Amino acid sequence: MTDLIINLAPTGMIPTQAMNPAVPVTPEEIIADCCRCADLGAAILHVHARDEDGRPTHSREVYGRIIGGIRDRHPDVIICASLSGRDVQELEKRADPLFLEGDLKPDMGSLTLSSLNFTATASVNAPDIIKGLAGIMKDRGIRPELEAFDTGMLNYAGYLIDKGILDPGGYVNLLLGNIASAQLEPAHFAALKSALPHGALWAVGGLGRSQLRANMLGILYADGVRIGLEDDLWLDDARTRPASNPAMVERIVEQAELFGRKPADPVQVREQLGLER
Amino acid sequence: MTDLIINLAPTGMIPTQAMNPAVPVTPEEIIADCCRCADLGAAILHVHARDEDGRPTHSREVYGRIIGGIRDRHPDVIICASLSGRDVQELEKRADPLFLEGDLKPDMGSLTLSSLNFTATASVNAPDIIKGLAGIMKDRGIRPELEAFDTGMLNYAGYLIDKGILDPGGYVNLLLGNIASAQLEPAHFAALKSALPHGALWAVGGLGRSQLRANMLGILYADGVRIGLEDDLWLDDARTRPASNPAMVERIVEQAELFGRKPADPVQVREQLGLER
Repeated sequence: MTDLIINLAPTGMIPTQAMNPAVPVTPEEIIADCCRCADLGAAILHVHARDEDGRPTHSREVYGRIIGGIRDRHPDVIICASLSGRDVQELEKRADPLFLEGDLKPDMGSLTLSSLNFTATASVNAPDIIKGLAGIMKDRGIRPELEAFDTGMLNYAGYLIDKGILDPGGYVNLLLGNIASAQLEPAHFAALKSALPHGALWAVGGLGRSQLRANMLGILYADGVRIGLEDDLWLDDARTRPASNPAMVERIVEQAELFGRKPADPVQVREQLGLER
Repeated sequence: MTDLIINLAPTGMIPTQAMNPAVPVTPEEIIADCCRCADLGAAILHVHARDEDGRPTHSREVYGRIIGGIRDRHPDVIICASLSGRDVQELEKRADPLFLEGDLKPDMGSLTLSSLNFTATASVNAPDIIKGLAGIMKDRGIRPELEAFDTGMLNYAGYLIDKGILDPGGYVNLLLGNIASAQLEPAHFAALKSALPHGALWAVGGLGRSQLRANMLGILYADGVRIGLEDDLWLDDARTRPASNPAMVERIVEQAELFGRKPADPVQVREQLGLER
């Protein structure tokens, strides 16, 4: 079995410390949690920044502090800046972290491949925004972390590859269990797997109670898992045991090892993705 | 084999007579095309209205003229008003045709079950808009025509049924082949079929070159097909033979009959859907 790529999503845009005190929100908290999880086996860190009031921000300055702080201790771990469109539409704002320079430049930027609905909101990622973010990343040598919630988003990835807007291969997170997206159903998973871009590395994550189940599919079938408090705040279905990022990573590492897979080393994942340090 | 429900989408929001002179645009053209296709076997008419400049409109007055004109000649055919969100976000505007009264009230209203991207634009259908349209239709005894482009939209239909916002059963159009949605791939189709609401009548349509192929899946597997110039302007893949709505309906009726299915009568579909005249 190949080594398992563990992609940590520690913060997201929605979780607060009122929901779970272990959610890292300040740059210092995010740095500490990311470094702890890198020690435990995370190879990719999917970072969302927050401003001083705990609200999501696209500020390159805040992203720079987080990225610099992590790299001081973990120079090899792969860092992905979220370019999420849940609250911001303008391309320039969403792309801001991509313009960091030198040691503060992110290795990857997240790229959600269509508009979609969550439980209470629409997340709008219009085609020109997707192409704009992909173009900036290509210009700056930053790899997209493709985020796919349903089969159509993978079809769109194939279209962007055909058009030369995305490079072939690359890296995809499949995210299961959102209310208006693909579920854990085997037929849905088969459809998603059939639609993956040729040669892409792929990981499986899930929202809420789907996270652990999706991660099991990742161990079974995929190159990796996406895991963390961004997607689920609990260790158990009954929601009696609040999770933390290190506790989630420790459990998935144990499960993977019992199955015969060990966590992938970031240096090896850099080689697989053609990412230089 | 059960009779095949033919759902005609004659106009849409994008096609113009510059693209294909057979696109019906004025109320008189739409009425004439719909009546001709009802004669040929269409049981449901999915009507988009246009204003005097040929631009999409949600005006109840224009919808009323079209619905009245069709019912003068075809009192039984089922008429669905498009409530599309491609260009308009406000619930009141989108819902306007639902407030027609008496003989002008539509039987159904279209309800796209999430936000999605088309080739060049995002189509935003936020959760509160979807719930709002569903609520107005329920209050007014109008049936939703559910539009699903991918597995997640069907999952959301199930959620709305569980919450009592939609009635169980109902009617679903599966629309295949949009660039950022499910494709004709068997694995995608299997996922969609597995996610259909229990007891729903369902039809299969497709965008562009996917239309005829999707309609074949409809004849093979589903209760019906969705067909018309809204989704495809051509009779052939090479795009040498411009289509018309009657030509498309005639061909699908021939194909269905060769397979052993005849067009469903609107009176019978009304019974299946619990729609009174």
